[in-house]
Amino acid sequence: MIAFKSKKFKVQVEKVKLPNGDLVDFASIMRRPGTSIIPFIDKDTILVAYQYRPAVERWILNLAGGTVEESETPLQNAVKELEEELGYRAKKMKLVAKLYPAPYMCNEAEYIFVATGLTKTKRHLEKGEQIRTRKIKVKDAVRMARTGKISDAITAAALMMIGHGLK
Amino acid sequence: MIAFKSKKFKVQVEKVKLPNGDLVDFASIMRRPGTSIIPFIDKDTILVAYQYRPAVERWILNLAGGTVEESETPLQNAVKELEEELGYRAKKMKLVAKLYPAPYMCNEAEYIFVATGLTKTKRHLEKGEQIRTRKIKVKDAVRMARTGKISDAITAAALMMIGHGLK
Repeated sequence: MIAFKSKKFKVQVEKVKLPNGDLVDFASIMRRPGTSIIPFIDKDTILVAYQYRPAVERWILNLAGGTVEESETPLQNAVKELEEELGYRAKKMKLVAKLYPAPYMCNEAEYIFVATGLTKTKRHLEKGEQIRTRKIKVKDAVRMARTGKISDAITAAALMMIGHGLK
Repeated sequence: MIAFKSKKFKVQVEKVKLPNGDLVDFASIMRRPGTSIIPFIDKDTILVAYQYRPAVERWILNLAGGTVEESETPLQNAVKELEEELGYRAKKMKLVAKLYPAPYMCNEAEYIFVATGLTKTKRHLEKGEQIRTRKIKVKDAVRMARTGKISDAITAAALMMIGHGLK
């Protein structure tokens, strides 16, 4: 049963059979997959995005990206969002991980891409999107993630994954 | 307006004023803070938990932990969950990070603790909880996180945070 529906997610309540056979009522959030992109503007420098997040009432440092529509693949979405949110096209877009932000309540998977070979085009944000971008040395971003200064779990994990060879 | 309510979360729909002044309808998931615990049973070995997660219809490798009730602090919850889910008491429980799993839709914060000085007691799982525990070398767990083999974002980020000094 769909108990709630918004533009971004819906809530589904169902009897779920646990592996031990118990039947329990369980409310799941159903949300399309997402993308998060780490764009390298040179070998040492990436672009991150600050976005206002109403749920936590603050600006959050995270990665550009979006929600994968039914008509597109995660890769196509990443290509589109890199241009819409940051104003870049990439020669190469490489999938580096698939992570679940909140598998204890939500089916959303997040596809993490590294974008390289960038050329500048033009941003075109959706209405209501609030994004500030910032260039940051990858080693500084990784250090921030390791020391708990990046509070978005997907962003922190993605940065540490690409940065594990760095001092 | 509360549009949906379950035992674990509720959905709140509100007019939200963006920093640019635009008013938009926004649905947020409101959920109590959570805890995730990395218990060291010796200096090289930690305990992880496999849990069946109905939202993604699979067993997920994650960290023990729970939802912080109104009557308790994150630390008190971590102490309780370490005993309930894994059957251990810790001499020391250290907060290492506070992460948001999904700040683009949910206000939940996750408090990450490292537990040391463990003594064995007895597990007592809640009804419906499906947890298998496993001892794993911390360096193996960190390597799994770095190479995308841990799909839970909080677990992956927490492991890489404690493991960044490791080869």
